[in-house]
Amino acid sequence: MFSLPLRDNARLRPLETWQAEEFAAHMDRAREHIRPWVGAGFITEDLAGARATLRRYAERQAADGARLHGIWLDGTLVGGVMFVNFDAAAGSCEIGCWLEPAAEGHGLVTEACRALLDWAFAARGLHRAQWNCRADNARSSAVAKRLGMTLEGVRRQSWPYGGTRHDTQTWAILAPEWSAHRGATGN
Amino acid sequence: MFSLPLRDNARLRPLETWQAEEFAAHMDRAREHIRPWVGAGFITEDLAGARATLRRYAERQAADGARLHGIWLDGTLVGGVMFVNFDAAAGSCEIGCWLEPAAEGHGLVTEACRALLDWAFAARGLHRAQWNCRADNARSSAVAKRLGMTLEGVRRQSWPYGGTRHDTQTWAILAPEWSAHRGATGN
Amino acid sequence: MFSLPLRDNARLRPLETWQAEEFAAHMDRAREHIRPWVGAGFITEDLAGARATLRRYAERQAADGARLHGIWLDGTLVGGVMFVNFDAAAGSCEIGCWLEPAAEGHGLVTEACRALLDWAFAARGLHRAQWNCRADNARSSAVAKRLGMTLEGVRRQSWPYGGTRHDTQTWAILAPEWSAHRGATGN
Amino acid sequence: MFSLPLRDNARLRPLETWQAEEFAAHMDRAREHIRPWVGAGFITEDLAGARATLRRYAERQAADGARLHGIWLDGTLVGGVMFVNFDAAAGSCEIGCWLEPAAEGHGLVTEACRALLDWAFAARGLHRAQWNCRADNARSSAVAKRLGMTLEGVRRQSWPYGGTRHDTQTWAILAPEWSAHRGATGN
Amino acid sequence: MFSLPLRDNARLRPLETWQAEEFAAHMDRAREHIRPWVGAGFITEDLAGARATLRRYAERQAADGARLHGIWLDGTLVGGVMFVNFDAAAGSCEIGCWLEPAAEGHGLVTEACRALLDWAFAARGLHRAQWNCRADNARSSAVAKRLGMTLEGVRRQSWPYGGTRHDTQTWAILAPEWSAHRGATGN
Amino acid sequence: MFSLPLRDNARLRPLETWQAEEFAAHMDRAREHIRPWVGAGFITEDLAGARATLRRYAERQAADGARLHGIWLDGTLVGGVMFVNFDAAAGSCEIGCWLEPAAEGHGLVTEACRALLDWAFAARGLHRAQWNCRADNARSSAVAKRLGMTLEGVRRQSWPYGGTRHDTQTWAILAPEWSAHRGATGN
Repeated sequence: MFSLPLRDNARLRPLETWQAEEFAAHMDRAREHIRPWVGAGFITEDLAGARATLRRYAERQAADGARLHGIWLDGTLVGGVMFVNFDAAAGSCEIGCWLEPAAEGHGLVTEACRALLDWAFAARGLHRAQWNCRADNARSSAVAKRLGMTLEGVRRQSWPYGGTRHDTQTWAILAPEWSAHRGATGN
Repeated sequence: MFSLPLRDNARLRPLETWQAEEFAAHMDRAREHIRPWVGAGFITEDLAGARATLRRYAERQAADGARLHGIWLDGTLVGGVMFVNFDAAAGSCEIGCWLEPAAEGHGLVTEACRALLDWAFAARGLHRAQWNCRADNARSSAVAKRLGMTLEGVRRQSWPYGGTRHDTQTWAILAPEWSAHRGATGN
Repeated sequence: MFSLPLRDNARLRPLETWQAEEFAAHMDRAREHIRPWVGAGFITEDLAGARATLRRYAERQAADGARLHGIWLDGTLVGGVMFVNFDAAAGSCEIGCWLEPAAEGHGLVTEACRALLDWAFAARGLHRAQWNCRADNARSSAVAKRLGMTLEGVRRQSWPYGGTRHDTQTWAILAPEWSAHRGATGN
Repeated sequence: MFSLPLRDNARLRPLETWQAEEFAAHMDRAREHIRPWVGAGFITEDLAGARATLRRYAERQAADGARLHGIWLDGTLVGGVMFVNFDAAAGSCEIGCWLEPAAEGHGLVTEACRALLDWAFAARGLHRAQWNCRADNARSSAVAKRLGMTLEGVRRQSWPYGGTRHDTQTWAILAPEWSAHRGATGN
Repeated sequence: MFSLPLRDNARLRPLETWQAEEFAAHMDRAREHIRPWVGAGFITEDLAGARATLRRYAERQAADGARLHGIWLDGTLVGGVMFVNFDAAAGSCEIGCWLEPAAEGHGLVTEACRALLDWAFAARGLHRAQWNCRADNARSSAVAKRLGMTLEGVRRQSWPYGGTRHDTQTWAILAPEWSAHRGATGN
Repeated sequence: MFSLPLRDNARLRPLETWQAEEFAAHMDRAREHIRPWVGAGFITEDLAGARATLRRYAERQAADGARLHGIWLDGTLVGGVMFVNFDAAAGSCEIGCWLEPAAEGHGLVTEACRALLDWAFAARGLHRAQWNCRADNARSSAVAKRLGMTLEGVRRQSWPYGGTRHDTQTWAILAPEWSAHRGATGN
């Protein structure tokens, strides 16, 4: 029922339980591409797994916690952005994203994250938004940079993947920084 | 984050758990006005009750069941429309509404119901949408009529309120009827 | 431990969790015969499904909701009657039934429904009892008529079965009507 | 809906969640009289407590476990008998009872226990039924004796009450013993 | 992190959820040997079953109920002792044990039970500890005797196994008896 | 039953549900002293709150998650150390601590953390242990340093307390670093 226009004929929408089949089909296109860069639990292998992800997010949203949003490009679900954590009492949240290969290079994730940050800071009054990514995930850290975030630290060998333990970067932006960034970039 | 424009500077939005304080304040304005016409469980007396309503709907939405949407007029929550039931497998749903006195007479509920029916029939492929109201609720049956619904029956003495048992009307519209109605009214 | 005599060497008893094997064997005899006329969830394919039905009813009964009773003819479970819904606060309930072919034509369902209505109206003080059936289910609407119920409406195309959407009749009887009916029929 | 005649104008019925007010009123009459002789959790002080007892038994019954039955004398709930435990897989159960003072001396408990034992051994095929009571509860051990049970042991100081630890007797009867006892007593 | 020395290079430790693989391997060595003498639910056939046992005990321990401890001999898990029940409010508990064949004859179970009894009586202030075993389990009743317990009764035909119903002995020791026994044996 | 000696007549033990009264009494002594430095949820005001903390940790421990240990000095519970998080699959954990004023200055927390790190790295095979504290908590960051941890970053304004948002330091140590540190310090 609801959607937000992004650029390039793309829209951001809530990604909900009833969209499990669409999400599972998208996961088939995205799986191997995103596997190294997202949390292990986000990779699912079939419809039941896709449905479980959507259900889990919906239940956390019902408790004002995590939230999941999809990005549709030309009517196809191509990825999304989420509040991995959302803690109104503490005034902080963590944002994440994923995208299938065909949709990269349009700035869709950055644009979608702007909508999440606007909502978190303006509508909900949060003070701090965080972004975690593997230290060797250049594409992801570039998004954090474009959003005006600051690199706050590197948790060493905290991301096990493929038999190795990778470092994890933590980026963050505070409410007044986001206001300034929005003003400066004109976005 | 998401909203849909209705007429008269009004917008339709998801009504969610985190909006409990706003919903409780609205309920204080609406309570005595809507008490005779809505289900007993929808009337709450305080913030905890308001939060419980929002949480219950959010949890049912997480299972692709009931859904709650608020209507904001000039930035104030004045009422809403909901899927009282939503059963994708059976292809049917039931729609309901409520409104505080100050917002009546603008056609907001009818307009909001149109958005719900569009979503139910077009986006979700449902076949049948139902509307129940007290038989003596002229305002509510007028909405059903304006939406193109047909009166299908009257459940006698099925609505206990204030020491009396009132009759309940059942109205409904089917998917092809909604298409025709939309075409005919130009809405 | 408990039972009620019906006519023709038949008895009505609570149908409980521990009777899952007996219920499953009966379902094997009844399945194809009742499939078009009962709710999709009531048709189960094996012992685990039969047990789940019994467990679900028992849990709802524990909350003073739905209740399931079996009909035994010459010691064999041949069908039953249930409170599909039971809402003491609202003063209303809904009754349903099912029967395997071999037990039809004895009036067992009508007689068993009388026991349910007596209990609902006299022991529990309810005001209204409802009966839903497919509009083309002549056998079922005849039971409603024999119980003195009134046809209150027809929900169009609300019963999907076998690729078609059938109409659903709603019948009901009120407490004073039941008293009058009982007096008039001498039953 | 269902009941079983006992002697002296008394009947045995399932004691269910919806009877909480009746059960609470009975508990007000029975409380101080039965407090020393029943499990601490069975004594409740108000309607909420009475309802919790009924709900707990109903939920255990839904899983084919414990069961609660009331005894009505001249239309008043005066006590009852229960399966404290019921384990069909192990073939064993434990029976208990309670009674308000006004109903003592009629043999109602003994008669009601006979119904439970018949059901446990004949209808359900159990092999062993047990009875626990405080060693100084002469009235209760007399019931066990009348039912043909054998004293199997005394668990020393296992029943804390009123600052003292009392001994607990364990009585039991096996399926063939019950058949013989039934035959011999002509009951 | 924590352990208690027993004799013969053996140690007693909490047996916890994370040790499921070790417990499953031990169960493979112990299964047929202990099957006739322990509760049916304690025998598991695979890793999932072993994990379920550990999880169930951990959850009951979280509610101050049952507790499970393992015995390690030369670094290998060879058996254990548990509080089958632990009821602080009633001041009583029940103790049980199991052991794989290779570890028998060292007095490990007796020694481990002493640690449990010390904790139950001294640290927790319980008054009574019970021990149940098949009447024909000479090894187990010998442990009860060595611990200074008294045989309190025999529940006839209460232990179904292998198509037969065996008798069950109940042994118990009270807090002052344990103090005296500890003093007399110098243990 | 189990404990580990620390220095100065102090011992480390599991801190469990049944110790709620002792924990509540300790919290009365510790509350105002630790309030600025621990998570808001850890501060409880009464026995029910203390019990809830212990129960929550016990349930997480049952799922191989968080764990709580108390430090007793001369027989009095004076503080403790915990695994705030424990994730065996990811090979990482987070450690935390608290202490009442009278027990400071003995190195008890540092010593207790060594036991936790030994267990996490040696017994459980984890790879990484983390420590979070307010950036202005000199006492806490000194513990992290003494344990050989490295400061990995500072999450700005992420710790709301008393109307201000404080920075949070993240320290961590990896398995091989802990081995080297243990060897170098001779502890």
